[in-house]
Amino acid sequence: MRQFDFFYFFGSGYAYLSVMRIGAMARQAGIAVRWRPFNVRTVMAENNIALRTQVAKVSYMWRDVARRAATHEVPFVKAPIWPTDPDLLANRVAMVAAEGGWCEAYTLASFRAWYLEGMALGDRAHLEHVLPPLEKDVDAVFAAANAPSAHERLKAETDAARGYGIFGSPAFVVDGETFWGDDRLEEAIAWAEGRHRLQQAE
Amino acid sequence: MRQFDFFYFFGSGYAYLSVMRIGAMARQAGIAVRWRPFNVRTVMAENNIALRTQVAKVSYMWRDVARRAATHEVPFVKAPIWPTDPDLLANRVAMVAAEGGWCEAYTLASFRAWYLEGMALGDRAHLEHVLPPLEKDVDAVFAAANAPSAHERLKAETDAARGYGIFGSPAFVVDGETFWGDDRLEEAIAWAEGRHRLQQAE
Repeated sequence: MRQFDFFYFFGSGYAYLSVMRIGAMARQAGIAVRWRPFNVRTVMAENNIALRTQVAKVSYMWRDVARRAATHEVPFVKAPIWPTDPDLLANRVAMVAAEGGWCEAYTLASFRAWYLEGMALGDRAHLEHVLPPLEKDVDAVFAAANAPSAHERLKAETDAARGYGIFGSPAFVVDGETFWGDDRLEEAIAWAEGRHRLQQAE
Repeated sequence: MRQFDFFYFFGSGYAYLSVMRIGAMARQAGIAVRWRPFNVRTVMAENNIALRTQVAKVSYMWRDVARRAATHEVPFVKAPIWPTDPDLLANRVAMVAAEGGWCEAYTLASFRAWYLEGMALGDRAHLEHVLPPLEKDVDAVFAAANAPSAHERLKAETDAARGYGIFGSPAFVVDGETFWGDDRLEEAIAWAEGRHRLQQAE
């Protein structure tokens, strides 16, 4: 089985589109995806001015997400609360989920609550809404997400993303080939299947 | 006829893909494109850290352009000389060309020489290579590109781009709807044809 890593951030507007699309696409292609949340804020701070200060870009982003959601028939109500997850709590819960093997289910529930039900990421209320249906104990998960190991795993995953040349979310790494952006998901899948035109030419 | 404006910069790596694709796509859709070069450097300086200082992003960009070129069957030899056109000469010549109605032909010849023949934009040698086949006098064009009117037109076009919320190159504006990136060209065409899913839903 080839490597197919999905790097994303809880709080990344464009990651929503990939979160909603990647499962079905990967299943159809017979690809096993590793869901690897990382701290894109660290990486972006090294490369860029904070997105939230760039008015034209942010305004464009939500319109673009609305258009792309329509194109891909992904549900979209309105631009979500953003920025969100100020203390990276939603992202650290994802580390607990990844450790426990329920990261995909947590991610889907979490992004849906954020985008479609208007709940800010990183709020206790958000976790109380998302975790019980996954049969997870809120207090236990909360404690684990605040433990040093969750912080350390998030840092290690961020280092891994940086090592692949990743500077934004979402991104996909297929056998060491890095793709950035939900709009490159089709290409990443093609690469994993060995049918990308550049692979065939090289 | 609907408005379809193509905003791009001589020196933008991704603009090459649109320059090579937009003519055939627009003809097939029956769309008249206005070719509108602008100074993306001004706009990016307002929104961003200079791209050339972002090592991971630049390295990604050329690999991504190579992949996208392969996907779209656009010729690609290697990453072009970049940054290029330090004094905006190639862009100011484009103002002369736009004024004279030969901007599309100049753009195609210019990007080909830059990407496929390894010639830096803004060099006198580049213009001497590109202009004579277009039956343009190099000295006359050079003088016009250095006149105040060329500087003023470039500034006015840049203001127009900014007014459409544009913060990068290439970009497309269709009836006031802004699309950023060569990877949004298909969507912009769909919008011009009235068949984008968000248009139909709104």
